[in-house]
Amino acid sequence: MELNKVLIASSNSKKIREIEEFLKPLGIEVVLPSRKLEVEETGTTFLENAYLKAKAYHEEFCLPTLADDSGLIADSIAPYPGVYSARFYSLEVFGKEEPIPSEDSANIKKLLRVLKDKENRNARFVACIVLYLGDGKGIFSEGVVKGYITDTPRGHKGFGYDPIFVPEGFNVTFAQMELSQKQKISHRARALKKLAEMLKTL
Amino acid sequence: MELNKVLIASSNSKKIREIEEFLKPLGIEVVLPSRKLEVEETGTTFLENAYLKAKAYHEEFCLPTLADDSGLIADSIAPYPGVYSARFYSLEVFGKEEPIPSEDSANIKKLLRVLKDKENRNARFVACIVLYLGDGKGIFSEGVVKGYITDTPRGHKGFGYDPIFVPEGFNVTFAQMELSQKQKISHRARALKKLAEMLKTL
Repeated sequence: MELNKVLIASSNSKKIREIEEFLKPLGIEVVLPSRKLEVEETGTTFLENAYLKAKAYHEEFCLPTLADDSGLIADSIAPYPGVYSARFYSLEVFGKEEPIPSEDSANIKKLLRVLKDKENRNARFVACIVLYLGDGKGIFSEGVVKGYITDTPRGHKGFGYDPIFVPEGFNVTFAQMELSQKQKISHRARALKKLAEMLKTL
Repeated sequence: MELNKVLIASSNSKKIREIEEFLKPLGIEVVLPSRKLEVEETGTTFLENAYLKAKAYHEEFCLPTLADDSGLIADSIAPYPGVYSARFYSLEVFGKEEPIPSEDSANIKKLLRVLKDKENRNARFVACIVLYLGDGKGIFSEGVVKGYITDTPRGHKGFGYDPIFVPEGFNVTFAQMELSQKQKISHRARALKKLAEMLKTL
């Protein structure tokens, strides 16, 4: 199968660079969409949302398209925050929070509140990547990084739930790590590595 | 990638034979599960349900696993019956039907009732196949056959909505066709063909 160009269904420049690093060694050129599409992420799983995004961009730009969806799942309230990770604060489930001073901090505030009396603080970041090849065909991969949720936020790097997530084998949060180190062990990096493995055999 | 054996996450012997016909020419041995698993099909799409099934069987039997999910989508009430095709009669949406004399006929009765005053009777059968390779990796393909819904059931072959579905380019329903002919143009056959194309390049 010829795969020279892949469109990235994202406008996040950090994400695009990270994906580029995995595709370039495979001789695949990364192409960016000329405009952002509003894709309704109505799926109940990361796979579904990544697929919906990839398919929508493919239909618009007619190129093999890579999309990802990711989030945090806390064991004691699984599958939450899950596919609602980015807007967990505004969900009725477990009670809403005001998006103050930011959506990220409101999400963290809510998760810490919900987990307050929970003994099990295990959690995992999950990323699902779909490479939609067109004509109903595609490949997917999922990357997971396990860890636990801290009692209070620590660190200012990264984004989302990074300040309260300590990955297995470490004693600092994602937000305390250098980006280069986080990218080595992150869920998205793991999913990309698996996708690259599959692509090598295509 | 070595792929000698594939487990089929199904206990439907007709389906298994159809799948076997596509995999054998690729030198892939079909393996059947020693027992049926109860997998909750909680997804909102065929892709998701096929994935859930494939993953569950893979976790139990530790082999690359192929699963499918399929159904009918009527344009004027899309995405219904959709992932609810097999239990459409019992859905609150559009009002329930009694499963008499069978679930199949109750599904048909309900769909004909709902479409009674609709001008647009276009519909499509969709099948999604997931081959879950393990370790979060997999490939998928989707097959579609377009057609329209008749006013009354015709024919006694096949199953499900076959008696009220006339595929594009024909003037008989799926239930009036010989199985061999239906299998040549069916949604599942199309999805399997696409999967086989992808596997040939693996």
